Amino acid sequence: MDRDVLKPQDQLAAWLAADMAEVNALIRTRMASEHAPRIPEVTAHLVEAGGKRLRPMLTLAAARLCGYDGPYHVHLAATVEFIHTATLLHDDVVDESAQRRGRPTANLLWDNKSSVLVGDYLLSRSFQLMVETGSLRVLDILANASATIAEGEVLQLTAAQDLATTEATYLQVIRGKTAALFSAATEVGGVIAGASEDQVSALFAYGDALGIAFQIVDDLLDYGGTEATGKNLGDDFRERKLTLPVIKAVALADDEERAFWQRTIAKGKQQEGDLAQAMAIMARHGAMDAARQDALDWVAKAKTALEVLPEHPLRDMLTGLADYVVSRIN
Amino acid sequence: MDRDVLKPQDQLAAWLAADMAEVNALIRTRMASEHAPRIPEVTAHLVEAGGKRLRPMLTLAAARLCGYDGPYHVHLAATVEFIHTATLLHDDVVDESAQRRGRPTANLLWDNKSSVLVGDYLLSRSFQLMVETGSLRVLDILANASATIAEGEVLQLTAAQDLATTEATYLQVIRGKTAALFSAATEVGGVIAGASEDQVSALFAYGDALGIAFQIVDDLLDYGGTEATGKNLGDDFRERKLTLPVIKAVALADDEERAFWQRTIAKGKQQEGDLAQAMAIMARHGAMDAARQDALDWVAKAKTALEVLPEHPLRDMLTGLADYVVSRIN
Repeated sequence: MDRDVLKPQDQLAAWLAADMAEVNALIRTRMASEHAPRIPEVTAHLVEAGGKRLRPMLTLAAARLCGYDGPYHVHLAATVEFIHTATLLHDDVVDESAQRRGRPTANLLWDNKSSVLVGDYLLSRSFQLMVETGSLRVLDILANASATIAEGEVLQLTAAQDLATTEATYLQVIRGKTAALFSAATEVGGVIAGASEDQVSALFAYGDALGIAFQIVDDLLDYGGTEATGKNLGDDFRERKLTLPVIKAVALADDEERAFWQRTIAKGKQQEGDLAQAMAIMARHGAMDAARQDALDWVAKAKTALEVLPEHPLRDMLTGLADYVVSRIN
Repeated sequence: MDRDVLKPQDQLAAWLAADMAEVNALIRTRMASEHAPRIPEVTAHLVEAGGKRLRPMLTLAAARLCGYDGPYHVHLAATVEFIHTATLLHDDVVDESAQRRGRPTANLLWDNKSSVLVGDYLLSRSFQLMVETGSLRVLDILANASATIAEGEVLQLTAAQDLATTEATYLQVIRGKTAALFSAATEVGGVIAGASEDQVSALFAYGDALGIAFQIVDDLLDYGGTEATGKNLGDDFRERKLTLPVIKAVALADDEERAFWQRTIAKGKQQEGDLAQAMAIMARHGAMDAARQDALDWVAKAKTALEVLPEHPLRDMLTGLADYVVSRIN
């Protein structure tokens, strides 16, 4: 297969195949539980559902790009995937989701209890893995990322249904729900490789901007994606989430539109046809295009950040990945 | 007030008052969230509900008993209390509890979502606090304790309603739900103080045995406590949990009794009068007394473990605490 025609994440997967095999083996070993077989059952349902393993690949790519040849990038990549899986399990309880990656969610197949507790187990497993690296700096970064993730989730909960939500609040929410783990994933890759402070900062900035762009695009797809993304069109609207295109449309709303948003988002009195109406209002104000432009701006920041890093095929793939993230809505 | 007539935990609280004031101040600072006011609201509801702060006192006592005079026992005590609070928040979601410490639970006052996410936030805060101590050994102990806690909770979930549950499984469950945090609390106190390996092992053994005795007693009180414990009589029976007295009674059941346990615990078809009937069956087999004797054996182990530690008023209080734990059912 010609590497040039592969998508950037597939190029990364090909380049990092040997490392990823080790990560997958470590994940399988560490998700086991001698005493509680429910744990690997629930975890396997999610971990083996064909996620893209984007976050662990970011850690591996960052470490390799900075010349690392020790063993601990594998531990850190597995750590990052465990944290991600734990947050998905808890998110599905919080969102009362029925589908994830095109399959029924764990809370539906088992119960909310299992999702909460297996999530806790995976978090503690991730914590054990990172302790094994012996790097206090890595632990510090991941502890801070964990706090930002949880805080962002709570903020999202309290900001839902609130039409006064600003773009600044939205940015905090998506830093928590997505960008904090992306930026920690790339940053710890650099730290474990002993990269310079400039390079570590650049890796953080890349992950942060990539994560923000990724989440803006994800939120846009909720108003224009297909079933193939594993999400249902309009989920965010039904859950009354204030995502970027809605925030932009609310800011420009006339009285009639404002009444519409009040009824559907603030009061949650939704009826047949409201989703189409919401999309029409957003289109009228160019809210989707404006949000897409914001995503492009973040992609540009991500790519600029990479300039400090050594020239390397992996750097080119990370650049390509940033472009690809937004191409999903082109 | 004469210290000799105080209960052991009140003696500890008096002796450690200055340290505990610092722990409480640190807890208040670290449970804050700049962006999500829901977090301190939910946390304060639980943290300030008048818990006994037993676990953080164990850490402080262990550290002081081993001669520590640095600042980090305070961080570790706050860590332990945050982990405890996080597990309570998640437990109440899992158990669908309505009351905790005699007050409505957070999942009832707010919602399950807040309990899950604020619990996650407190776990990440506890993680930040322990990283600040700079001790990888402490991190290792607490990471392992976290995994044991989560595993025990899942095991309890899958063992519930299963009449084949053995005393060995019960022991694993209560090590997870209670003893793992007690033993980590005392062990990290010794580690941060630079105590000898013998002393660190003794502190672990004390916390482990104390926690097991504590939980056996707690489970006994569920069939004979008063409302003053903040638990309702028979909660475990209604939730079909296989606790020690039930396991002992099931092991000795005749055919008729076995049918009773099948109906009430395995199938969950409970009716008026079943709780009284369950208690009568357990009394007939001496199951309560036998479980109480097990608790006394663990108390003896806890006290023996302490013998390696230096003679000190705090050691006497820890000895007294072990006796006191079982005196709740005398």
